[in-house]
Amino acid sequence: MNLMQSPDIVGQVESIDLLVLPGYLVPIEPAGSVLLDHALAVHDGRIVSILPADEARLKYKARQLLDLPGHAVMPGLVNLHTHSAMSLMRGLADDLPLMDWLQQHIWPAEGQHMNRAFCGDGVRLAMAEMIRGGQTTFSDMYFFPEATAEAAIAAGMRTAVGLIVIDFPTAWAQPGEYIHKGLDLHDRLRNQALVKTVFAPHAPYTVSDEPLRQIRQYATELGIGIHMHVHETAGEVEMAVAQSGKRPWQRLKELDLLGPDLIAVHMTQLTDEEIAEAGQYKVHIAHCPESNLKLASGFCPVHRLIEAGANVGIGTDGAASNNDLDLFGELRTASLLAKAVAGDARALPAATALELATINGARALGWDDTIGSLKPGKAADFIAVDMSAVNTQPLYNVLSHLAYAVNSRQVDHVYVAGRALLSEGRLQTLVEDELLAKAREWRDIIRP
Amino acid sequence: MNLMQSPDIVGQVESIDLLVLPGYLVPIEPAGSVLLDHALAVHDGRIVSILPADEARLKYKARQLLDLPGHAVMPGLVNLHTHSAMSLMRGLADDLPLMDWLQQHIWPAEGQHMNRAFCGDGVRLAMAEMIRGGQTTFSDMYFFPEATAEAAIAAGMRTAVGLIVIDFPTAWAQPGEYIHKGLDLHDRLRNQALVKTVFAPHAPYTVSDEPLRQIRQYATELGIGIHMHVHETAGEVEMAVAQSGKRPWQRLKELDLLGPDLIAVHMTQLTDEEIAEAGQYKVHIAHCPESNLKLASGFCPVHRLIEAGANVGIGTDGAASNNDLDLFGELRTASLLAKAVAGDARALPAATALELATINGARALGWDDTIGSLKPGKAADFIAVDMSAVNTQPLYNVLSHLAYAVNSRQVDHVYVAGRALLSEGRLQTLVEDELLAKAREWRDIIRP
Repeated sequence: MNLMQSPDIVGQVESIDLLVLPGYLVPIEPAGSVLLDHALAVHDGRIVSILPADEARLKYKARQLLDLPGHAVMPGLVNLHTHSAMSLMRGLADDLPLMDWLQQHIWPAEGQHMNRAFCGDGVRLAMAEMIRGGQTTFSDMYFFPEATAEAAIAAGMRTAVGLIVIDFPTAWAQPGEYIHKGLDLHDRLRNQALVKTVFAPHAPYTVSDEPLRQIRQYATELGIGIHMHVHETAGEVEMAVAQSGKRPWQRLKELDLLGPDLIAVHMTQLTDEEIAEAGQYKVHIAHCPESNLKLASGFCPVHRLIEAGANVGIGTDGAASNNDLDLFGELRTASLLAKAVAGDARALPAATALELATINGARALGWDDTIGSLKPGKAADFIAVDMSAVNTQPLYNVLSHLAYAVNSRQVDHVYVAGRALLSEGRLQTLVEDELLAKAREWRDIIRP
Repeated sequence: MNLMQSPDIVGQVESIDLLVLPGYLVPIEPAGSVLLDHALAVHDGRIVSILPADEARLKYKARQLLDLPGHAVMPGLVNLHTHSAMSLMRGLADDLPLMDWLQQHIWPAEGQHMNRAFCGDGVRLAMAEMIRGGQTTFSDMYFFPEATAEAAIAAGMRTAVGLIVIDFPTAWAQPGEYIHKGLDLHDRLRNQALVKTVFAPHAPYTVSDEPLRQIRQYATELGIGIHMHVHETAGEVEMAVAQSGKRPWQRLKELDLLGPDLIAVHMTQLTDEEIAEAGQYKVHIAHCPESNLKLASGFCPVHRLIEAGANVGIGTDGAASNNDLDLFGELRTASLLAKAVAGDARALPAATALELATINGARALGWDDTIGSLKPGKAADFIAVDMSAVNTQPLYNVLSHLAYAVNSRQVDHVYVAGRALLSEGRLQTLVEDELLAKAREWRDIIRP
């Protein structure tokens, strides 16, 4: 097992920041592995080694010891698609189809109230929920991305900030301004270790060809990704065909947008050929099963996309259409739903579901050299989940429990780059009372 | 509003056991109602009145006051189908089709290890999880039902104990003995206020005509219900057609089992005619969406069954095929999935989903005179859910949050017939450390 290191010289003690001694270590890579009686050694924000606990106790002198015999330690979850600021519109409108929900409720509320303060407060509320639920990285798409970046940097979450592009005016930008405002933010964030930027053209039905051509060009020049809603509903595909004679996927192909730098979100409406092409072009998919169910958008054929060679990660979508940001719940739904859609209980088994929410999300963001699994050299982005609760006992198989039985409230510790964001269930970088007070203020503004 | 009572004479104070003052009172009946600044008055295990909080403070002198401004108080959830003792086999085998899972894993483990002690310990572990998750009533189907009844009575949960009937021998009974052992238990439990018994013939493919005829006769004579797996998978329907030329539903109809005393569990494989008949015969459905997904059994057409006039409640199924007993999660999955299956985001809206998990479950068990909604005269079976967490703020619509955003860990108080089973998040009638120790012992026995 190449994850282990043996002490070079017995008796030579190395000083490190943190030694984690979990009951179960779930590194995600190699696939399906579970290490018992092992330790995770952390220094300077990185994983130094993974080794037998006995050896670790001899080899290291740690400033901090996390002794967690009842916990599973695994990589932090990667939420591959959200609109975090929309947490302030959680439950504002429900039980409606996508277009009614957007046009009658969400867009009007955004038009009236969405501004920089709204975005900052919404992102902070969302991060509190995401961190509590074991998420260390989120990939966002929303307005005022500078507010998202600022809030994320302050809270210490790893974030792929979406540089939103849309054809209509918003409080953030006028049509034609989006790309340049985004590029400006990209420049300003260049030295932020925990933040990267990704183009986020909203959807084929809201972004015209010219900005998409520019995005293609800049994305290639700058080596940054593209994050876009694609084929979320049957209606948008039909509308595109009626207007242009062309399915959106075909249009994206002609615009040279299909490729390993595209994160295509939703993908519920796909022909056999499109599924095959998603694999051939090495497209990344952000699967958002609960939002797709709630808006009755359809079923993403996850098992077929994986078979075809596409990389599938998981997102919660925004809290206004989910209505939580619980990625443990989401990966569970993804696995259960894939079985039913495939008509095969073996589809998307527990270990694979956990990969979707970790290493696959990291890969989609081009961050798999840094996060997504626990390996020496990678960043110390990890979480500790208490497995001793009544709903995760008895324990025969820790991967099964993490995928199917765990409640996100069992996450007790969350670290990003070696920094504690959650410690013994308490947020370390966000002040919960302040977030909640802001949420109540926004509610009173939005629905007086 | 007939839920309110005004004080007869101001100044005349009535002594009661408990006054609950929640931020949000969700009585479930009338449908969709939410009462603000109201109180729930409880005495001798029953709801005495629901009235404005100001009036309640004048009218009542309560031995105990539960002041819960950040909580929603609603009826306890009714878990309409579970095999609670199977919690001891949680995660023993996953990612397998129903018949492989049963025949290769569950039945062999049961054959080797299942006995009275196993059942008692398993039921206690399950109840700890169910109570923590806001369930006050469960409808069970498993062997050693006397162990289930005994454990439930001790813990104070309201329980419909299934009198299991199956054609093959088990540690509990030999073929031919089941019905009489069940009737004997029915007699012994006659004076238990919190327990009723229900016949529980396992499934059409495991119970032959003769015992089903006897069950029909005794059920009518004694006025007790029948709880049975029906059309869970396509395979069992095909097998029945191949063997007898008849779908199981047709056979049950010929045996006169379709009626308002039948709780048909799963029902994923239904023709248009069968859906119509489920309504005509006033059959109750125990919908178990997560188990159906996990075993790839199919999709129960809930919205169509409701339209046809059937009464639909919700169950978790056993923890071995779910893998938790979280009814808040289950009602959420039920609602989300119904929208996708119906292709209509308006299907099974939040308020209806909450009814499925409360009053509809009570109705299926013939217990809607006593539980399932908060009304003067009904039993004081209620729960208090903390709505102040980051995942349930801001709060525009409490029904939306209860259905779509709440985490079952937000349940802080659970009462059955006025007795606290959970108080400030702590179990009152079960000793968690003991349950967990037993769970570990059984794991070591089952998988040494």
